[in-house]
Amino acid sequence: MEDFLKLAKKSSRKISTLQPKIKSNILMQMADYIERNSEIIIEENLKDIELGRKNNLSYALLDRLLLNEKRVIDMAGSIRKIANLREPVGRVLDGWIVPSGLRIEKVSVPIGVIGIIYESRPNVTSDTAALCFKSGNVCVLKGGKEAQHSNFIIATLLQEVLAKNSLPIEIISLIPDNSREGVAKLIKMDRFVDLIIPRGGEALIRYISQNSTVPVVKHDKGLCHVFIDKSAKVQNAIDIAINAKCQRTGVCNALETLLVHKDIAQEILPLLLDEYNKQNTKLLGCQKTKSFIEVELASTEDFYTEYLDNILSIKVVDSLDEAIEHINTHGSGHSDSILTQNYSNAEKFLDEVDSACVYVNSSTRFTDGGEFGFGAEVGISTNKLHARGPMGINDLTTYKFKIYGNGNIRE
Amino acid sequence: MEDFLKLAKKSSRKISTLQPKIKSNILMQMADYIERNSEIIIEENLKDIELGRKNNLSYALLDRLLLNEKRVIDMAGSIRKIANLREPVGRVLDGWIVPSGLRIEKVSVPIGVIGIIYESRPNVTSDTAALCFKSGNVCVLKGGKEAQHSNFIIATLLQEVLAKNSLPIEIISLIPDNSREGVAKLIKMDRFVDLIIPRGGEALIRYISQNSTVPVVKHDKGLCHVFIDKSAKVQNAIDIAINAKCQRTGVCNALETLLVHKDIAQEILPLLLDEYNKQNTKLLGCQKTKSFIEVELASTEDFYTEYLDNILSIKVVDSLDEAIEHINTHGSGHSDSILTQNYSNAEKFLDEVDSACVYVNSSTRFTDGGEFGFGAEVGISTNKLHARGPMGINDLTTYKFKIYGNGNIRE
Repeated sequence: MEDFLKLAKKSSRKISTLQPKIKSNILMQMADYIERNSEIIIEENLKDIELGRKNNLSYALLDRLLLNEKRVIDMAGSIRKIANLREPVGRVLDGWIVPSGLRIEKVSVPIGVIGIIYESRPNVTSDTAALCFKSGNVCVLKGGKEAQHSNFIIATLLQEVLAKNSLPIEIISLIPDNSREGVAKLIKMDRFVDLIIPRGGEALIRYISQNSTVPVVKHDKGLCHVFIDKSAKVQNAIDIAINAKCQRTGVCNALETLLVHKDIAQEILPLLLDEYNKQNTKLLGCQKTKSFIEVELASTEDFYTEYLDNILSIKVVDSLDEAIEHINTHGSGHSDSILTQNYSNAEKFLDEVDSACVYVNSSTRFTDGGEFGFGAEVGISTNKLHARGPMGINDLTTYKFKIYGNGNIRE
Repeated sequence: MEDFLKLAKKSSRKISTLQPKIKSNILMQMADYIERNSEIIIEENLKDIELGRKNNLSYALLDRLLLNEKRVIDMAGSIRKIANLREPVGRVLDGWIVPSGLRIEKVSVPIGVIGIIYESRPNVTSDTAALCFKSGNVCVLKGGKEAQHSNFIIATLLQEVLAKNSLPIEIISLIPDNSREGVAKLIKMDRFVDLIIPRGGEALIRYISQNSTVPVVKHDKGLCHVFIDKSAKVQNAIDIAINAKCQRTGVCNALETLLVHKDIAQEILPLLLDEYNKQNTKLLGCQKTKSFIEVELASTEDFYTEYLDNILSIKVVDSLDEAIEHINTHGSGHSDSILTQNYSNAEKFLDEVDSACVYVNSSTRFTDGGEFGFGAEVGISTNKLHARGPMGINDLTTYKFKIYGNGNIRE
């Protein structure tokens, strides 16, 4: 592992200064090469699918794993899209001249070697590799075991394009030891790895956060709230509460707990009950909620639970302050929304809810690199530092100060 | 510790939304209060000094520890300067409207609870507390044992001002258990602490980086290089090489290894020898250096050593590439400078040296918040992520996305 990572670190110097044109051109070659080899990819993917069937993977998981002609073409399309993103390296973020006459420029630069740990979907392999390549970073990929044949063939094809362009193949690598032990080693290699991005289950992310000596930008859970304030527009509020919960239930930006101001509860809760019934949503409510509509009683634990399913906790609150306090205590700092016509309440909610994305009069489902207009998404960070919320390709860079002098010495 | 940090976390919500005017006003009160209580501060400081003498602290350390009337006035002056900095919270860093009509603003917000671990100088206590307060953060301070009486009285005075303004005193706290065990606990409290900033010796920083489950922005060593290219202006190069090494030797931005291009070595090395002799600098050189001037032979280890003393390693290199390779292998990614009149070489050095601050034709001694014009300095980060190089007060903030809708649901 150490020798392998030394090579990765070394090749990061090579890629960090590649010309934008050359990077885009190589990415275009990669996209073509992936398309041209779709048969081999699908063949290898079939091995994963067959193993998955043997191991009784759920239909949903098998579907996420599956690659067909169309999905391979989409993979290639995604690489082309990344190739065409604005160059993330070399952006002048700030610049000024200091009294001593030195000219200082703060410039975006690649981070170096990035370890990415993820599961299931094989297209993450090509997406991530392309994002790291475009931003001048070396990536060390650790995909799920269930997708190992698919990931291996995709990485191999991308490496063949690197080799054809006389670049070190370590620029895009799969982790040499694709086991728990491999991950345990990787996250201790702070001499060679600059950043770890884990995407996956809570247990995996907790393990990595607790044990990594490499900085971690985690993509953790989303326990998102919508608060219907007493001045909310009723029809808007219903539309948003339904959309945030039901449009897709298994995603991190979906609604898990609905907070309702007591003064609007009597009017809106029965209407919401009707709509959620149409969506077959299972409702759990606090004691007060039960005085307005007939629902199962929610436990304390329920308000700490990310269901990722068609289930919703409902709580009636006495005030905006109670809503904010509830969110800051029970939430995961991901995405939370207030529905209100009251200016001061909107401002207060935006300021005091300590989450990556705070909304007024909108569904939480917009927390997403695509919806944010980033062109491509690295993921949604639940870190507070370096990157928070939807991460675009620019978040795969750091900065350095370039300082231009003319014989300057310090007095 | 846990109960204490819970209170700290709770009070972070209180301070994060204080009005700029109120924060500045309280800081001004703190400065006045420190000045008015200078006698008590000096009295308490004397206890540390006496203990230090008993424990045979060096004269240099005792001097760093000492507070007198003038130094207390300087402490207050520094708080006033921080009070007058531009408000770091609420800066709109970016903003745009997405196709769905949502208006997105990326806005700077406080980080939350920051643990700061430092040594010796008691003025760091008031400086750090003021910087954190101004940026809306709660600070948990862990100063050196040798300064415990001084730190305690300073923190107590600042807390008295908080209390007078009906604010929770936990906003500025000393760690309740000022021992190694206390630190060990603090760095595992990721539920309540958002960031740890260690400033101090290499061993301390390594320990914290390896063991903290809280994100760390470290202030590690500076093994800085100056590379004299063959086209350097000779007199400039001598002035800078002397300034970078000798103006102050015990600091992280001082020169430790001088690299000299072989084609200028014969001309410049004897001149440098004369000048360094005048400064009583001890020189260690590689084998090639010894063929030009008489110096002691440098070991491999010497080129990995941050002397923090009036000692310099010298290496003659064959090319710019060798210089860059040497710096990226031996350096600490802090501050490195090229002295050259060659445009392409300057560009290549700035691009390929992987350090926080890369200079052309300048001393490395300018890597400093004050010299950068930040008004006040948090320190010099050797992290690659979140903050790199000199940290100003803006680096004590993170961001959130505020998203303004009008009934938006995701299709």
